[in-house]
Amino acid sequence: MRASIRAAGFKGTVQVYTGNGKGKTTAALGLALRAAGHGYRTYFGQFMKGQIYGELRSIKKLAPLITLEQFGRKGFLHVTENPAEEDIRRATRGLRRCLKAMLSEKYRIIVLDEINVALHFKLLGEKDVHSFLNQRPVDVEVILTGRYAPVSLIRRADLVTEMKETKHYYRKGLAARPGIEK
Amino acid sequence: MRASIRAAGFKGTVQVYTGNGKGKTTAALGLALRAAGHGYRTYFGQFMKGQIYGELRSIKKLAPLITLEQFGRKGFLHVTENPAEEDIRRATRGLRRCLKAMLSEKYRIIVLDEINVALHFKLLGEKDVHSFLNQRPVDVEVILTGRYAPVSLIRRADLVTEMKETKHYYRKGLAARPGIEK
Repeated sequence: MRASIRAAGFKGTVQVYTGNGKGKTTAALGLALRAAGHGYRTYFGQFMKGQIYGELRSIKKLAPLITLEQFGRKGFLHVTENPAEEDIRRATRGLRRCLKAMLSEKYRIIVLDEINVALHFKLLGEKDVHSFLNQRPVDVEVILTGRYAPVSLIRRADLVTEMKETKHYYRKGLAARPGIEK
Repeated sequence: MRASIRAAGFKGTVQVYTGNGKGKTTAALGLALRAAGHGYRTYFGQFMKGQIYGELRSIKKLAPLITLEQFGRKGFLHVTENPAEEDIRRATRGLRRCLKAMLSEKYRIIVLDEINVALHFKLLGEKDVHSFLNQRPVDVEVILTGRYAPVSLIRRADLVTEMKETKHYYRKGLAARPGIEK
């Protein structure tokens, strides 16, 4: 009966983290970490990513307060042209997993990490995400991350934060450093 | 002799998270969480804040991978006019603690959370922070957060990300929600 969530009279909102800067997924991770400090549970679904273990390993220590699932193939998906059937299937399944988590009454926060990128590359349709949001219980917070957030989601969100890279690494172009960028 | 850090040939940088949007401290928290997944240690020093337990509680579960210390008085300091001696003393001590941590060879990442705000309110001078950065070992990553990042720090940083609030809560003006915003 979601009693523990209801008790606090919590009102959830929809947040979007977008833009070309760093810190979108990391901000969502930090939010989950902070919420865990209050005993709130987060379901963290990652689109486009698979078997990226850095994020997974430390989150395991926070179980059952944070549940992380990755829906992508191994690595980070870089789509250039038409998406593969396999990737569409994975994203669709991912959104279904997120919906199930949202309706399970077990989580206060549901993160759809990189969902904006999945939309951009047409692994999912915007209407799929709106249909997901239509089912959001009032006491659940939903976080949508990724660059290229579509206008319809920005319109719908309660809070939109744009991470803007205003100065680049002098080391730009070098590989992402494990433990920092990935 | 910091063997475990050196082994990976890690090259640290200076990052600034600033702007009026959400997610600056949370991005730094997430970064620490991700780094912990790789077994890297973070020292997380919080200026302006004291006895804010939400962030502390879950971080304790990640000890010894994340060490958090708060240098402010209880709550979050909102300075309006001249800073009090007590707050200047606390910020100065905080920076000294961060320096000690940075030189201890125990941490790969040093976070100076809300240091930009401490500078803005003249609890510290910019030269104090530059002098701190002058002593950064090459294999340590330093993260500076807070709105109002001064130009001299932005010039000096390798990466600057501006968190820009492009759309506000409909619930704007309502108190920060424990477990989400604080």
